[in-house]
Amino acid sequence: MIVDRRVLVTGATGFLGRPALRALVDGGWQVDAIARRVPDDVHGEVEWHRADVLNDGQLEATVSAVGATHLLHLAWCAEPGRFWTDPKNLDWVGATARLVAAFAAAGGRRIVAAGSCAEYDWSYGWCREEHTPLRPETFYGSAKAAAGILVTAWSREVGISAAWARLFHLYGPGEPDGKLVSSIVAGLRAGRDVPLSSGEQVRDFLHCHDAAAALVHLLDADVEGPVNVASGRGVSVREVAMMLGDAAGATHRLDFGARPGASGEPPLLVADARRLAATGWAPAVDLRLGLAALVRGSA
Amino acid sequence: MIVDRRVLVTGATGFLGRPALRALVDGGWQVDAIARRVPDDVHGEVEWHRADVLNDGQLEATVSAVGATHLLHLAWCAEPGRFWTDPKNLDWVGATARLVAAFAAAGGRRIVAAGSCAEYDWSYGWCREEHTPLRPETFYGSAKAAAGILVTAWSREVGISAAWARLFHLYGPGEPDGKLVSSIVAGLRAGRDVPLSSGEQVRDFLHCHDAAAALVHLLDADVEGPVNVASGRGVSVREVAMMLGDAAGATHRLDFGARPGASGEPPLLVADARRLAATGWAPAVDLRLGLAALVRGSA
Repeated sequence: MIVDRRVLVTGATGFLGRPALRALVDGGWQVDAIARRVPDDVHGEVEWHRADVLNDGQLEATVSAVGATHLLHLAWCAEPGRFWTDPKNLDWVGATARLVAAFAAAGGRRIVAAGSCAEYDWSYGWCREEHTPLRPETFYGSAKAAAGILVTAWSREVGISAAWARLFHLYGPGEPDGKLVSSIVAGLRAGRDVPLSSGEQVRDFLHCHDAAAALVHLLDADVEGPVNVASGRGVSVREVAMMLGDAAGATHRLDFGARPGASGEPPLLVADARRLAATGWAPAVDLRLGLAALVRGSA
Repeated sequence: MIVDRRVLVTGATGFLGRPALRALVDGGWQVDAIARRVPDDVHGEVEWHRADVLNDGQLEATVSAVGATHLLHLAWCAEPGRFWTDPKNLDWVGATARLVAAFAAAGGRRIVAAGSCAEYDWSYGWCREEHTPLRPETFYGSAKAAAGILVTAWSREVGISAAWARLFHLYGPGEPDGKLVSSIVAGLRAGRDVPLSSGEQVRDFLHCHDAAAALVHLLDADVEGPVNVASGRGVSVREVAMMLGDAAGATHRLDFGARPGASGEPPLLVADARRLAATGWAPAVDLRLGLAALVRGSA
């Protein structure tokens, strides 16, 4: 039996997009990817389309020409340090709405799109898709929440299937510089002291390869609406730093308390990952091993 | 002292827009209104601009040329019977985002925009701005919720002030045909029997002149984020119908139970109106008198 599984991927050159492309190709998908610049180092197995998702006309023409059955929408403004307040978040909501409408109009059947834990009211700590109120602290979180509401409602409206994947704390190869894990790894590998907060805040860490695999798994699942894509396990930032320090044999470089905690940082931000688990997916990368591989530079 | 108060109004020819224009003119505002078709019956005191809010280029040029200090954004798809599921709801979210961005870029200071009780999770019955979760049942409600999140977050982001006015059940002159009050009034005035549900569902009714006055009041207030624009009082549909029947001297025409209740209709949908009341505003139109005036055709 030949099953027509052609997926259109946006954000395919990003931190999460690259492992997602790999997982899709490995999973036997026919993969089309949209990018403003086609990368030099990904060949053959992916059909690339030069288009700017923020540019209306091109986008709709491209989506229509591809005629994919599935859409994996990861593109968003992601400039480190800037994306929380980037005015482009506003444009991404409109672009997401147009993308989804164009995909549905072209006969698409199933959408998986990237949302964020930043959509939730962080004062609740433990984030459950159907229970925790949406009350974003940030402009980024607000825009993601608005896009999620739209994608979910529009899909129901036109009778296609959509999952809104709320991503939590990702780490792994290709993590942008200056993020928590990447900056600790960079410091340890350079033999420098690493200034940290007290590290008591508890987060939900997932390897980007696991996150990519979960998104690809969701393309074939039938769960609809918001789905946390996360480990479902709380780990303190101190534990994560210590795992990295252990792997480098340099826990003495970890200077806990040298930095103040960011204001507004919740003490607990962990996903209820049971909706995702109920689709039959489980993470494959052990946190300690995944972190150690980054320190060795082998992953 | 000359205070520069120039307001740009969208949706100015609608059920709520017309009394809002009147209230603005009466309140000494300099009023600019955007409409696709400039009405014949509103003259002189309002400066009209022909533009389509859903049409990008025109809109931004118009907003920039007007240079208003305040924005009253009421335009949305509102075709009776169709607006709950109209695909245009999606476009209105994008149009609202662009409108607000253009207004801020042109130096605007204060926004009041129309949201809806349909944004709330109706299973809660009593709707409180900061407590009741957003979980819209309908595509219209979802689009309004998304737009409200965006307008609120964008305004905070660029440092302008915005209130998102969640409107509940409005009635009054100009109410589109086929709505609850307008259809009862039409039946009674024609001397026909009026088929109704059991009428036990409790709603929050506000005269459109009061709603318009509240929106104009909010333009001068400093409350930000969601604000219910409603009476704050629950009244059953049966009571409303009986008030209309009494005014017509024809309560025997009211055939309660002749219609099934709409599925998914919540038994209670009433606003907590204390945020609005705290701005110093109170409704002026008594429900019984407002309804009676409609039956007489004098309002």
